[in-house]
Amino acid sequence: MLKIKNCIVLLLGIFMLNTAIAEVPEPTIPDTFAKNKVVLQISDRDPFKQTLVLNVANNLMKHYGADLDIEIVAFGPGVRLLLDGNVNTKRIKPMMEAGVRFSACANTLGNFGKKLGKKPDVMEGATIVPAGAARILQLNAAGWQVLKP
Amino acid sequence: MLKIKNCIVLLLGIFMLNTAIAEVPEPTIPDTFAKNKVVLQISDRDPFKQTLVLNVANNLMKHYGADLDIEIVAFGPGVRLLLDGNVNTKRIKPMMEAGVRFSACANTLGNFGKKLGKKPDVMEGATIVPAGAARILQLNAAGWQVLKP
Amino acid sequence: MLKIKNCIVLLLGIFMLNTAIAEVPEPTIPDTFAKNKVVLQISDRDPFKQTLVLNVANNLMKHYGADLDIEIVAFGPGVRLLLDGNVNTKRIKPMMEAGVRFSACANTLGNFGKKLGKKPDVMEGATIVPAGAARILQLNAAGWQVLKP
Repeated sequence: MLKIKNCIVLLLGIFMLNTAIAEVPEPTIPDTFAKNKVVLQISDRDPFKQTLVLNVANNLMKHYGADLDIEIVAFGPGVRLLLDGNVNTKRIKPMMEAGVRFSACANTLGNFGKKLGKKPDVMEGATIVPAGAARILQLNAAGWQVLKP
Repeated sequence: MLKIKNCIVLLLGIFMLNTAIAEVPEPTIPDTFAKNKVVLQISDRDPFKQTLVLNVANNLMKHYGADLDIEIVAFGPGVRLLLDGNVNTKRIKPMMEAGVRFSACANTLGNFGKKLGKKPDVMEGATIVPAGAARILQLNAAGWQVLKP
Repeated sequence: MLKIKNCIVLLLGIFMLNTAIAEVPEPTIPDTFAKNKVVLQISDRDPFKQTLVLNVANNLMKHYGADLDIEIVAFGPGVRLLLDGNVNTKRIKPMMEAGVRFSACANTLGNFGKKLGKKPDVMEGATIVPAGAARILQLNAAGWQVLKP
């Protein structure tokens, strides 16, 4: 009896692990031929920093034109930039359509969930990465420049 | 009649474009033999960060002596560090004389101008660069280390 | 008489200089075989940033496991993270035991000392480095990635 119970617990564990992995897959390095590859970091509490990071992305798009790849990585209090229904949705949507990627930190969303009793939803089009800080280090190691506005 | 009007608009456009380009020329990479080349970024709203970025510049100058090149790039709310009549003028002047470069973001100055009705003046000795963020990336790609105090 | 006095002043100067050097030795690059070498910078006034930098360190430790070396460098208002009796002592201690290094900026401690009338003590296990900014640049030049949460 005990063995069967252990087996069920083990199978359940594997199932949950797979679900967790399926939920937040390890991110890959984006395919790009752009010469300018930039990660913009947002991790501040000050809401103006959300405006600033989007301003900087727009300025870089004007400056470099098509020869640019941008990923905006949000973690800590900065993850609010990407929550469902956020005040910048109308600015972010066309940037997503123009090819800017947006990544939200799963660790932070988990912490928010513990406080709110429910993991908050991220806006459509944003990608959830396991750890925002690790995502920045991963892109940086692959030759992306990191800027924190 | 319409054609002449179009032509005038076009010429005016070219003239204004040239003026804009003349006003904010594309910055170059400074000539330097220094082993330590450092960009200090200031883009925060907190006025104390203006004190801190100058403290860090002074500490690095003490630490590395002559074998150092510093450029302080200000954008977003951080551009206040370099507005004409700013509170740190007396600290900045001798640093300029010691060779520290100060760059102010034209995009930010344009945004300030829209709010104030008039583009603010920058202090004498500061350079206006087209985009502060792009300036940091340009220097970083040329081997400069970036630090945001 | 004047010559003897000068000589005493000179000797005293040399003694004080040596004491200062003995107090804050030039830091070395840590020996490490880890593939992931990360400097986390803390220099903000916002106390929440102290929580965030420790969260990021913990997330990276979970993410990379043993193949990771972390040094947290505190300067400016961020040095409060490492003062003796700080509120995060219970979180920092086990991180130190797990191999995370903590460095506090001697320049900042000196400035705090001028304001308080007495140089504050740093917590046991933290290392004092001559200049926090220079420490970050030194590690970065040696191949460490820098992240400012």
